Amino acid sequence: MNLLLLHPDQRLDGDRWRLDDRQATHVRSVLKLAEGDHCRAGLLDEGTGQAVIESIKNNEIEISFKVDSKPVFALPLNLLLALPRPKMLKRLLVDAASLGIKNIVLVNAAKVDKSYWQTPNLKGDLLREKLLLGLEQAGDPVMPRLRLAPRFRPFVEDELDQWAGPGRRLVAHPGPFPELPRGLDEPATLAIGPEGGWTPFEVALLEQQGFGCHRFGSRILRVETALPALVGALMRLP
Amino acid sequence: MNLLLLHPDQRLDGDRWRLDDRQATHVRSVLKLAEGDHCRAGLLDEGTGQAVIESIKNNEIEISFKVDSKPVFALPLNLLLALPRPKMLKRLLVDAASLGIKNIVLVNAAKVDKSYWQTPNLKGDLLREKLLLGLEQAGDPVMPRLRLAPRFRPFVEDELDQWAGPGRRLVAHPGPFPELPRGLDEPATLAIGPEGGWTPFEVALLEQQGFGCHRFGSRILRVETALPALVGALMRLP
Repeated sequence: MNLLLLHPDQRLDGDRWRLDDRQATHVRSVLKLAEGDHCRAGLLDEGTGQAVIESIKNNEIEISFKVDSKPVFALPLNLLLALPRPKMLKRLLVDAASLGIKNIVLVNAAKVDKSYWQTPNLKGDLLREKLLLGLEQAGDPVMPRLRLAPRFRPFVEDELDQWAGPGRRLVAHPGPFPELPRGLDEPATLAIGPEGGWTPFEVALLEQQGFGCHRFGSRILRVETALPALVGALMRLP
Repeated sequence: MNLLLLHPDQRLDGDRWRLDDRQATHVRSVLKLAEGDHCRAGLLDEGTGQAVIESIKNNEIEISFKVDSKPVFALPLNLLLALPRPKMLKRLLVDAASLGIKNIVLVNAAKVDKSYWQTPNLKGDLLREKLLLGLEQAGDPVMPRLRLAPRFRPFVEDELDQWAGPGRRLVAHPGPFPELPRGLDEPATLAIGPEGGWTPFEVALLEQQGFGCHRFGSRILRVETALPALVGALMRLP
């Protein structure tokens, strides 16, 4: 946790805030701060600033804090991700948020196991908690927008174009395709398939929406290895 | 598991091999293969080929298999990694092996918690098991060389130069440094520090061995996110 990320509900009054249990435990046990000490904090979707530990009573910690810098360095990359297995999903959301991705759709695909859509991990609170961990890691206060698209075709045909907006549209796909471009710092949308890949039908529908296939080496990577590797290759990290 | 990776000990005679318990369970429960079916297999450090399921008796599976392709696509990248916390280490080794890294040193650093060197995870068998998972994932039969360097300075001063060999030497380090180069397909050595980074003293010792500092965006990433992102950015994946 490189940023205490505060929710508006945590404001007591003015510049005074109360940490939640997890934050308080972190401040005491990991950062080992005492009254009067400083640390970085942020207000969700607003910005960051310096916080001062005002009082510590048992696990109740109050701080003073004011936003003094606007959030910067979002990654202009939209991520269209075939819903991964639940255990991977957690890690992928932390990674995506820490890399600065602000726009994520988890989409169905033929090779997505149906059971993945039934998992309790898809509850909004749990997804949000993982994104929050990524933001805290990267020192970024801006929560990514995440949506679920449990039906591939209607999403791709009716909504993808508007969701993806301007910029290049790329599918990471094994085969005799051009290599993935490198070091972009302009908007782009990246589609990452399930284990086993997109089907030809799915690729064709994506191509109709302006996506182009690009290869990324010949090794078969787990999605949780592929995501940071693809993002690192494709984008100039801000 | 995209490759059944066989150890020489598993040979029965000639082209006949017996799967170990984990492989047999995978063949039956995940791949759901029957007698006569084919799948990819490899012989450790030798090469890959097509295997045929010859007999399945309970969880005892025998296959026929012969190496017919030599291993390809290793990544010409050496990884000097400050020993991460045990939980991260497992994931990092799977990732490093699946990305094709063949040369890894886990080194001490001032900000590596001393307790990390005491963990049972550092036993050779466990480290090797994680590397194996990465190889199976990527379909690569060649086990990376992994060594532990629990003393930073003697390793860096006396052994690093020879270990790293020819090619660029890079430290990923926040600060006003040149950006990380991109898409290399020549030999290189990458040094990744602990949470909290290398100390100036450590950086100075690395610089004496020809390492140059490079920045990689301004976001603070977990090591397990940073490793694939750095490798994806730096190297052209084979």
